[in-house]
Amino acid sequence: MPENSAASSAPADANGRQEVDWLLTDIDWIVTCNDAMQCIEDGAIAIQAGRLTAIGPTRELAGKFHARRHLRLQGHLAAPGLINAHTHAAMSCLRGLADDLPLQRWLYEVIFPTEARHVNPDFVYWGTLLAAAEMLQNGVTTFCDGYFFEHSAVEAARAIGSRAVLAQGILDFPTPDQPDPSQARACAEDFLRHFNNSEDRLRPSLFCHAPYTCKAETLQWVKQLCRQQGILFQIHLSETAEEAAQLTKKYGARPVSYLDRLGVLDELTLCAHSIWLQKDEIELLAKRKSGVSHNVESNMKLAAGVAPVPTMLRAGVCVALGTDSCASNNDLDLFSEMDKVAKLHKVIQHDPLVCSAPKVLQMATVKGAAALGWKEQIGSLEVGKQADIIAIDLAQPHLTPLYEPVSQLVYAARGSDVRHVWVGGERVVADGRVQTLDLAEVLREVRKIAGAIKSESQYRFE
Amino acid sequence: MPENSAASSAPADANGRQEVDWLLTDIDWIVTCNDAMQCIEDGAIAIQAGRLTAIGPTRELAGKFHARRHLRLQGHLAAPGLINAHTHAAMSCLRGLADDLPLQRWLYEVIFPTEARHVNPDFVYWGTLLAAAEMLQNGVTTFCDGYFFEHSAVEAARAIGSRAVLAQGILDFPTPDQPDPSQARACAEDFLRHFNNSEDRLRPSLFCHAPYTCKAETLQWVKQLCRQQGILFQIHLSETAEEAAQLTKKYGARPVSYLDRLGVLDELTLCAHSIWLQKDEIELLAKRKSGVSHNVESNMKLAAGVAPVPTMLRAGVCVALGTDSCASNNDLDLFSEMDKVAKLHKVIQHDPLVCSAPKVLQMATVKGAAALGWKEQIGSLEVGKQADIIAIDLAQPHLTPLYEPVSQLVYAARGSDVRHVWVGGERVVADGRVQTLDLAEVLREVRKIAGAIKSESQYRFE
Repeated sequence: MPENSAASSAPADANGRQEVDWLLTDIDWIVTCNDAMQCIEDGAIAIQAGRLTAIGPTRELAGKFHARRHLRLQGHLAAPGLINAHTHAAMSCLRGLADDLPLQRWLYEVIFPTEARHVNPDFVYWGTLLAAAEMLQNGVTTFCDGYFFEHSAVEAARAIGSRAVLAQGILDFPTPDQPDPSQARACAEDFLRHFNNSEDRLRPSLFCHAPYTCKAETLQWVKQLCRQQGILFQIHLSETAEEAAQLTKKYGARPVSYLDRLGVLDELTLCAHSIWLQKDEIELLAKRKSGVSHNVESNMKLAAGVAPVPTMLRAGVCVALGTDSCASNNDLDLFSEMDKVAKLHKVIQHDPLVCSAPKVLQMATVKGAAALGWKEQIGSLEVGKQADIIAIDLAQPHLTPLYEPVSQLVYAARGSDVRHVWVGGERVVADGRVQTLDLAEVLREVRKIAGAIKSESQYRFE
Repeated sequence: MPENSAASSAPADANGRQEVDWLLTDIDWIVTCNDAMQCIEDGAIAIQAGRLTAIGPTRELAGKFHARRHLRLQGHLAAPGLINAHTHAAMSCLRGLADDLPLQRWLYEVIFPTEARHVNPDFVYWGTLLAAAEMLQNGVTTFCDGYFFEHSAVEAARAIGSRAVLAQGILDFPTPDQPDPSQARACAEDFLRHFNNSEDRLRPSLFCHAPYTCKAETLQWVKQLCRQQGILFQIHLSETAEEAAQLTKKYGARPVSYLDRLGVLDELTLCAHSIWLQKDEIELLAKRKSGVSHNVESNMKLAAGVAPVPTMLRAGVCVALGTDSCASNNDLDLFSEMDKVAKLHKVIQHDPLVCSAPKVLQMATVKGAAALGWKEQIGSLEVGKQADIIAIDLAQPHLTPLYEPVSQLVYAARGSDVRHVWVGGERVVADGRVQTLDLAEVLREVRKIAGAIKSESQYRFE
């Protein structure tokens, strides 16, 4: 297996070894998620200036690099950081608030009134920090978010060091951060100013809530602004059968055709859920190269339906995975999502061959990167890409024995198996602990927010 | 909330406090799983001679007991040990061996030939130890097993200290441990001699593989032997549509009616899978009080089908949860099973109210105990029952905030959150580590077995 190494102008030491920031060696398995889904046994990774400088067998790399930090990872598996393509991170403050209710009661009697009373910049800051901490610990290095007061999510993601696409939510209704919908454009433009061009971990986005909560003009000006800025446009699409039927009746076209007619579908559009799609809608999404985030646990828990994932994959749609929010999941663990995606579609299709482990892992990595418009930088362990890496501790009962590393990742590994996480070459999780914040403080602040919600809520907690 | 305390003849100290082995106090939440599904905030538990002596608020219990070992569990949730009602523990040696294959190829080209060549008492001993270690770490204190060379599973369960129902597998075909099926009865009777009457953690059982691999006479003598011994009879039932259809054609009756005609259905019969059932079969299972183990992950992964769990529950069938083996799962984590049961049936039934968190937790605890015929001793935290207890660390991002403890257990907690486990009052897991064996040795021995399988297997590993 040839070593894969970048030409580099980095300095060499006296023995002619190239100086790098990090050298990870003796890794039992590296799952690269490159196009060939190559796995390297007893592998090594060199990182310099935040990027992957070399990947290959330990015996080839060990003598070529001198590292400021050298970590031997015997008994570990390394993989690209996972990409959560759809969440509302701050809603971690509402984790498990009123489960097992009918969707309409849950939304209109619990979630919406609670959001109206409690969502503010503090809620978004601490909730996003909590969510980002949970995600990093679980090996999610990049998340794609949309919520209110999203500038506070920018602050939180910046503080903890996650990679993220962060979107201001836009509706034609009063929202916690925008009582007057006519001011939405100003709010969106103001939000975009919170990004620092030199930051390579955070990218802005705008999120039109849904075709039934944003009128045609809104969808169009938001998409136009996204095009001007070269940023991702997000939207919830056909989550429920009722919503798809109503929209079809109102506009005389199925939801995907309607969006296409408005000109909002292109390769920088990401459609969350996309459950109730007809064949021609799937083909249209593939043709426009728009991404889909499949949020299997949320869809199951809310009984929204089963997205036609095998059909979308066959049609060439770029399907990524998302957790949705903690209010409908109730966690942000992409390992658990991968396991469910692989298993749910098998039983639904009566076919144990659909959504194989490699295909599902691609959805959580390279396809997530592509759906976010970030494929050139992240999603796989390939030389030149950002060093977003997770290391999983294999020396555990539930990960022994190991016959096939990709299968083990999808069907047996859990978020809690992640021991080390690098984002852009910075180790943000070491030995399972987030290094970049005071986790106890975050838990304390979120408990305060939840205490206020619990004491004021009209929902009866038993 | 009145304290719940057993009359006891245990000695008292100088202050009149009753002496107990363990006192657990300051527990954030105790989820009792009693009939009322009572949860106790800031609770305490007293354990004496392996049994629960008292359960109640810390402020009530703290002064009444003097404990040889006192553990403060601030930031933890305590619940009954989970009960895995269906597994083949030793098959942990085959974890992830050839995934994503058609069922028939998987069985006939991989699993059966591998079992024929490799299953022996060592395989069963080390495989069962590995599985039992995984289960204890994940909060499963009781498992219900069936496999070959099951006397080696008895040795393993005895060594690690799990509670278990252990069944010798019986087929009318040559098996790894019984090349001559006519000797099955002698093999079964010999197996029953491996149990020590004084052991209260291990109970014997017999497992007729399935109605299509055991003829009527076999099913009948095995059930008769079980009745004589007062032990559990297990069988795989209607896992695939084809199997149910073929049996119906052959015997002129649906599988449940056929078993009933043979007289093998009663409250000490446990039917694994039970997916392809008609309404009258469900009613018959309820009438006979036979248990069902629902193995949701295995059923999904093998695309076997979705068991009619909500209908069975409404009909009064005792539905427990099982993991099935690591060859079709690929782990033994009942938290992951609970989460899937709660979510899968919602999306299948288009109803977010079915399989609520409390109902699912009951399946993994009290209903598991009932299905195993062990309800008087285990399955809930109630005074007089065995002290099978798990303590979960709540001070983690994915378990914060906490609005409702049962919901948090089912929808957010993972096996890896279990920090301490008691079986019959003995702490077998402390700080997440199994105390009763050398885990590194077990991992090493299983890797050896897997190495031999991998090197000899005709299946091509890539």
